[in-house]
Amino acid sequence: MTDNFTYTLEAQDGRARAGRFTTPHGELLTPVFAPVGTAATVKALTPAQVEDLGASLVLANTYHLYLRPGDELVARMGGVHEFMQWHGPMLTDSGGFQVFSLGENSKITDEGVTFRSHIDGSTHHFTPERAVHIQENLGADIIMAFDECSDPYDRAYSQRAMQRTHAWLERCLEAKTRPDQALFGIVQGGIHPDLRAESAAFVASMDTPGIAIGGLSVGETKDEMHATLEIVDPLLPENKPRYLMGVGTPEDLVNSVYRGIDIFDCVLPTRLGRNHAAMLRRGGRLNLKNATFAADPNPIDETCTCYTCRTFTRAYLRHLISAKEMLSATLLSIHNLHTLIQLTQDMRASIQAGTFEEDFEPMLVKGKA
Amino acid sequence: MTDNFTYTLEAQDGRARAGRFTTPHGELLTPVFAPVGTAATVKALTPAQVEDLGASLVLANTYHLYLRPGDELVARMGGVHEFMQWHGPMLTDSGGFQVFSLGENSKITDEGVTFRSHIDGSTHHFTPERAVHIQENLGADIIMAFDECSDPYDRAYSQRAMQRTHAWLERCLEAKTRPDQALFGIVQGGIHPDLRAESAAFVASMDTPGIAIGGLSVGETKDEMHATLEIVDPLLPENKPRYLMGVGTPEDLVNSVYRGIDIFDCVLPTRLGRNHAAMLRRGGRLNLKNATFAADPNPIDETCTCYTCRTFTRAYLRHLISAKEMLSATLLSIHNLHTLIQLTQDMRASIQAGTFEEDFEPMLVKGKA
Repeated sequence: MTDNFTYTLEAQDGRARAGRFTTPHGELLTPVFAPVGTAATVKALTPAQVEDLGASLVLANTYHLYLRPGDELVARMGGVHEFMQWHGPMLTDSGGFQVFSLGENSKITDEGVTFRSHIDGSTHHFTPERAVHIQENLGADIIMAFDECSDPYDRAYSQRAMQRTHAWLERCLEAKTRPDQALFGIVQGGIHPDLRAESAAFVASMDTPGIAIGGLSVGETKDEMHATLEIVDPLLPENKPRYLMGVGTPEDLVNSVYRGIDIFDCVLPTRLGRNHAAMLRRGGRLNLKNATFAADPNPIDETCTCYTCRTFTRAYLRHLISAKEMLSATLLSIHNLHTLIQLTQDMRASIQAGTFEEDFEPMLVKGKA
Repeated sequence: MTDNFTYTLEAQDGRARAGRFTTPHGELLTPVFAPVGTAATVKALTPAQVEDLGASLVLANTYHLYLRPGDELVARMGGVHEFMQWHGPMLTDSGGFQVFSLGENSKITDEGVTFRSHIDGSTHHFTPERAVHIQENLGADIIMAFDECSDPYDRAYSQRAMQRTHAWLERCLEAKTRPDQALFGIVQGGIHPDLRAESAAFVASMDTPGIAIGGLSVGETKDEMHATLEIVDPLLPENKPRYLMGVGTPEDLVNSVYRGIDIFDCVLPTRLGRNHAAMLRRGGRLNLKNATFAADPNPIDETCTCYTCRTFTRAYLRHLISAKEMLSATLLSIHNLHTLIQLTQDMRASIQAGTFEEDFEPMLVKGKA
C-alpha cells in the first residue's frame, strides 16, 4: 500500500521543507496549496482553468458529496476524479468538521455522529467506518480519518475530542480497504501544548502515509497557532508530509511552512473571489466593489502573472461586480488561487536555494522560535 | 471610410451566401453567429473561453453600457474592446430596442426617446445623434442606427415606426464621425410586405456598409418571419452583409441563411445556459435539471465537439445544477454557443460546397419559396 505514496524530503531550510509526495494520480511538489472543490467543483472555475493555475491537488468535501449527489452515485460515475474531470491528485476530508459545525443539528457519541442535513433536514449517521466507506466510494488519493474538532480553549473538551479522535483513527485504519488511497491521521488537542504533543506522538505511532493537523484556524490567535505548530513539528516523522487543514492566507502559509508544514487547503481564495475581494501576495485584500476603483486602469497587482492581472483592469473588475456579472467571481477566484499557489511554488524554490528566511523575512512572525 | 469595411460574396447556393466582411479588428466569415456580451461580458465566460469557441463577432448593448459603467468611462478605458479584452470584431446595438422595451417607462417623439433607467429610475434621453455619439465612445466596429421597433401586427404603428426609423437613419449618418466604425441601417415594417419592401429599398438606397433587419423574432409566426425575409432579400444589395437582429435558434439560423442572411446575434444560448437548458443542434432542448439525468453517463450530445461535451456527463451537469454551482451556467453556455457557432461554420462549408439545401434539408421550412 505505501508504495503508492512515498514522500521524499528534497531540501530543508531551517524547519521549512521542500518535498515530493507521489500519489496514484501524480506527484505533489510541496509546499502545496489545494483549491477546495466542495461539491466536486472549484466554484466558478472549469477544471481546465484550475489546471492552468498550476494547481496539483484539489480537495472535495465528503459531507457535501455524501448528501448530494451521493457517494454511491459518484462511485457509479467512476469516482470523484472522473465525475468532476480532475485528473490530478485529490483529497477528501472526512466530513467530521462539517458535521460538528452543524451545532445543535448534530449529536456525538463514542460510536459516531447523528446529524441533520443542511439541505433537507433529513437525519444521517456517520461513524469512522462509514466516513472511510464513503471516502472509498468517492475515491480520492488522500482520505482523512474521522476526527472531532473541539473548542480549542476548552481543555477538558479538547482532551475528550483528542482521545476520541485517536480511537476513531484506529477504527478508520481497520475499516480501510483500498490500497490506492492514503489515509492521513489527524492531530488534535486545541491550544494545549501537552495535548498536542500527546496527539502528535500518537498519530505518528500509527504510521499513516501523511499526518494532518486539525483544529487550527478555528478562532485561536496567530501566536497560539504558531506555538502549536512548533510543538507538533519536531514530534512528527520527517519522512511524511504534514497537512495543515483549512489554512489559509499568504501570511499563514509562510508562517506555517516556516514551522514545517507541507500541504494546505482553504475555501478562502474562492469565497473571497465571490465576495469581491482580491488577496494580495504580501497579505491584505482589495475590495474591488469600492468606487475608488471605478476608473482605475491598473491590474489588481502589477507584479502578479495570473490571467486576471495580465488581462483586466481594476475598473473592469469593479464594473463586473457592480453589474452583478458572474465573471467577477471567476476572475477574482483565478487571481486569489494563483496568489496562494504561486506563493507555495516560490517558497519551494527559496527552500531549495536555502534562502527561505531571507526571501520571506517581511512576512515572517518569528515568535519564541 | 468604406475601405475599412468590405464584404466579398464568396459563394452562393440558392439564396444562401458565404462571404467575408472585413473590419478594423479582423474578418467575419459569414454566416456568423455573435455571442451577446450585454454588459461587456459574455455572461459566465472569460474572453479566452469565447475565443476558444471560435467566436469572431461579439455584441455589446449600448443601453446597458451607457447606464453602467457609462460610455465616457469605457472611452477613457480605451473603448469596449480594450475594456472587456475582446480583440476581435465587435458590434453594438443602438439602445433603441431596450429603451422601447421599457414600455411605460419610455416616451417617444420624432426627436427622440425619454426613458427611465431600470437600475435606479433616473431619467435619460436618447436621440439618433446621441445613440451614435454613445456608440462612438464605446468604439465597436459595427454600430447600429437608432430605430423604432413596432408591434409587428399593428399596421399603422409599423408604418409610423418605419418612417421614423428612416428619418433617424439619415440623422445617424449625419451625426457619425468615426471612419473606423460601420453604421448599419435597419429595415423595419412589421409583418407587412409593402412596408418591408419600402423599408428595404430605402435602407439600401442609403448605401450603409451593411444592412440589418429588425423587428423580427418579436412574436410573429415562423411563416411570417420567413415571408418577410423573402420579401427583403431580393431588394438588398448583394455586396453588403445582412444582419438579422436577435435571432436565435438552430432552426431560425438555418431558415434565415436559406433566405439570404449573413449575421446573427442572440442572448438565447447564454440565457438558456443559466437556466439549465442545453440547445440541441437539430432543434429542441434538454432541461438538465431533470432527475432523468441524475445518473446519465453520456454527454449532452455525443456528436458535439465542445469542451463541455468532450469532458462532462449529463449526471455531472445535473449535479452542478442541483447544487446551484455557477459552473453549470459556464458549461451550458459553452455548449449552447458552440452549437450555434459550429452550425454557422457548417452552413458556410455547405454553401461553399454547393450542398446547403441537401445538408440542411431536415431543418428547412420551405414555405412558398
